[in-house]
Amino acid sequence: MSLGKKCGAEFLGTFWLTFGGCGSAVLAAGYPDVGIGWLGVSFAFGLSLLTMAFAIGHISGCHINPAVSVGLLVAKRFKAAEFLPYVIAQVAGAIAGSSVLYLIASGHADFSLEDGFAANGYGEHSPAGYSLVAGLVTEIVLTFFFLMIILGSTDSRAPQGFAPIAIGLGLTMILLIGIPVTNMSVNPARSTGPALYVGGWALSQLWMFWVAPIVGAALAGVVYPLIAGDPKAED
Amino acid sequence: MSLGKKCGAEFLGTFWLTFGGCGSAVLAAGYPDVGIGWLGVSFAFGLSLLTMAFAIGHISGCHINPAVSVGLLVAKRFKAAEFLPYVIAQVAGAIAGSSVLYLIASGHADFSLEDGFAANGYGEHSPAGYSLVAGLVTEIVLTFFFLMIILGSTDSRAPQGFAPIAIGLGLTMILLIGIPVTNMSVNPARSTGPALYVGGWALSQLWMFWVAPIVGAALAGVVYPLIAGDPKAED
Amino acid sequence: MSLGKKCGAEFLGTFWLTFGGCGSAVLAAGYPDVGIGWLGVSFAFGLSLLTMAFAIGHISGCHINPAVSVGLLVAKRFKAAEFLPYVIAQVAGAIAGSSVLYLIASGHADFSLEDGFAANGYGEHSPAGYSLVAGLVTEIVLTFFFLMIILGSTDSRAPQGFAPIAIGLGLTMILLIGIPVTNMSVNPARSTGPALYVGGWALSQLWMFWVAPIVGAALAGVVYPLIAGDPKAED
Amino acid sequence: MSLGKKCGAEFLGTFWLTFGGCGSAVLAAGYPDVGIGWLGVSFAFGLSLLTMAFAIGHISGCHINPAVSVGLLVAKRFKAAEFLPYVIAQVAGAIAGSSVLYLIASGHADFSLEDGFAANGYGEHSPAGYSLVAGLVTEIVLTFFFLMIILGSTDSRAPQGFAPIAIGLGLTMILLIGIPVTNMSVNPARSTGPALYVGGWALSQLWMFWVAPIVGAALAGVVYPLIAGDPKAED
Repeated sequence: MSLGKKCGAEFLGTFWLTFGGCGSAVLAAGYPDVGIGWLGVSFAFGLSLLTMAFAIGHISGCHINPAVSVGLLVAKRFKAAEFLPYVIAQVAGAIAGSSVLYLIASGHADFSLEDGFAANGYGEHSPAGYSLVAGLVTEIVLTFFFLMIILGSTDSRAPQGFAPIAIGLGLTMILLIGIPVTNMSVNPARSTGPALYVGGWALSQLWMFWVAPIVGAALAGVVYPLIAGDPKAED
Repeated sequence: MSLGKKCGAEFLGTFWLTFGGCGSAVLAAGYPDVGIGWLGVSFAFGLSLLTMAFAIGHISGCHINPAVSVGLLVAKRFKAAEFLPYVIAQVAGAIAGSSVLYLIASGHADFSLEDGFAANGYGEHSPAGYSLVAGLVTEIVLTFFFLMIILGSTDSRAPQGFAPIAIGLGLTMILLIGIPVTNMSVNPARSTGPALYVGGWALSQLWMFWVAPIVGAALAGVVYPLIAGDPKAED
Repeated sequence: MSLGKKCGAEFLGTFWLTFGGCGSAVLAAGYPDVGIGWLGVSFAFGLSLLTMAFAIGHISGCHINPAVSVGLLVAKRFKAAEFLPYVIAQVAGAIAGSSVLYLIASGHADFSLEDGFAANGYGEHSPAGYSLVAGLVTEIVLTFFFLMIILGSTDSRAPQGFAPIAIGLGLTMILLIGIPVTNMSVNPARSTGPALYVGGWALSQLWMFWVAPIVGAALAGVVYPLIAGDPKAED
Repeated sequence: MSLGKKCGAEFLGTFWLTFGGCGSAVLAAGYPDVGIGWLGVSFAFGLSLLTMAFAIGHISGCHINPAVSVGLLVAKRFKAAEFLPYVIAQVAGAIAGSSVLYLIASGHADFSLEDGFAANGYGEHSPAGYSLVAGLVTEIVLTFFFLMIILGSTDSRAPQGFAPIAIGLGLTMILLIGIPVTNMSVNPARSTGPALYVGGWALSQLWMFWVAPIVGAALAGVVYPLIAGDPKAED
């Protein structure tokens, strides 16, 4: 598979995750009575990953997340030469997905970027008012386990073909825990898309949603091989 | 498998998707306190497709959606000679499913077709008041990704047997995003069934729910082969 | 596998479905704010079947429902000699499951059998006030499709191993549609357990929850082979 | 696989289940309007197990629960020599997971250990006020069926690779039934973590959440072989 095709898949996959996950939050979460709430948003994010992992896993591996690419790199499951093109495609996809979402949402009379546009934040921009430290710990711990799930379920000794289910529903679970804390990122590309539209506070807090997921992912890239012994890399 | 058996399966499958998906919305969504809300409706639609894909996938391929038939045709995964019979069976199944739902629902004292009967709409008939343009973009983008999931997860290089899970839960995710915008179609047959009962505005807006899904699906039929290289067609 | 072991499995499986499904409705559905609602009850019923199909499918086939046994019998996937013992084990399991649920629930200060104890009903005992005819049509149609899913997903040409997922989530979908109409049965054993505790109206309406599911299931046993051609029976 | 690696996996797995399951309850369940409720908590617990079973099943078998280790021991699917190290790793993981959750949650202005910190309880500490007897029966019955699902779905005659789905969603179902009764344990390690932080009543009631799950699990270890005949143990 050519690098161009792989990057095309990463672009479309990250578009889907950002457009769909953030879209469910912006369009459908807070509607009175029948709105989907955080439970629905958690499923939308998780299913965006589950569906893409089945759809493009055989093309690019379906990272669609710079932190995932870092974790796989540290665990020696991903080629360093492809890292930068992957991350660029992911961020571009997230920005494109946010842009289409903005196009749809901004035509509504009640729409305001001040409602957050699903951007990630801490302190006064945390959905439930959690501090920077709480947000940092949450993002690091949850990205660490996210990568443990990815590295474990794609291990050659795990049941074959099921990894997209484990990984997608793992992301659902992560959002069920962490939306109140930071609106939950574990994915720097997904954080970057909405932040560019919201600007101001969202951009000034964006560093955290690059640093924390990458730290958690890299840590898992070190720890998984220690407890798993010598898996044959799936790639 | 004879074309007659395939069309029988498409008829029953589209009956199930339309009766079940719209049925959950009409009967169970808005009930106070314990009602299933949009989250439940999203699962009902998605599971109708997941269950039928396992039940009749080996008979007809389980398109149960004219836009899916278009997308597979464009991607050269479906024979042109079967296209028209499939679409007729799908539309007939959707109308039959809506008719049985009408039979059940209309006996209830509080029932009124003015509540929408789960028909799709835009402008003042969008559940949350989104414009024609917002609806058009939403239907095109979501059908495009719906077909990307279908084409990708049924690719011979994807894990075998899992496609019904990816595709069904993909439809769930699509509804989690788009119900507020258009009540979400991505399926012209599903839109046609309730529109015939609602009449008036629903019929005059129906064109959009044929055009937009078909445009999105055809686009995916062109794009998927470009990023996926040369998959061996599953069919 | 001996008939005794098979009946033991059917007993425990139907216990689980009735205790768990009805238990979620009686104990957890209506609690203010955090209660699971009809969506949670739908998942509890569906997951009771999904889990048992994986746990005892290789022992008894996991019918745990007299209507399923009828449908498989009509479709020639089940031996007539085992029919009666299976149904007896199923009904006994449902009664035992309801009894343990009664033991747990009845100790609570707010418990009253007048709240329905998750029994099925129509007319004034339908959760949302649907008539006998609406209930009859709903139970027949939904059991028909339930058996179509079972017969299709266990067909030798369907993906192997996935049937419990299709069948369990199919039951979830069925409840998402039909709880408001009859509290949803599609399973005469599940209806019989709570009806014995509630007595009165529940017993006098119980006939419908034997007749309708059996009619729907038998119909599917006739129709599936017609559209599917000549499947090799799984059993 | 060395015992050290296995215990490392059990530590991390039980950390994840306790941190994630209890975390969803403490952080996200009760938030007004968009909170995830008991349905979301049920999915978070179940998905924590589903994801870990795929991620570390090939390392340690993913018990991450002393009652599961007991049930597998009784059913002769687990070596007695590894029992104590496994339980120690599980309890240590649960305590570590609760500690990180405490770190995150306690920084919030509204946090109080008096809200329960997701500890298990009966009588006046049952979420809906259920008695000790109701709690005891509920924990025994649900752990019994939990182990039946585990023993059945990992039987060599069951579909291979699907057990994590059956077991994880089985835990989801168990919580859908039992949260109102005891906040649902079926896992002594998960109960121990929060109880150490809450102290007082939680510690004095902790015995029940060791005794009842272990009794239920041991019972299943006896009953499953009786109805299943002679399965080849999966281990």
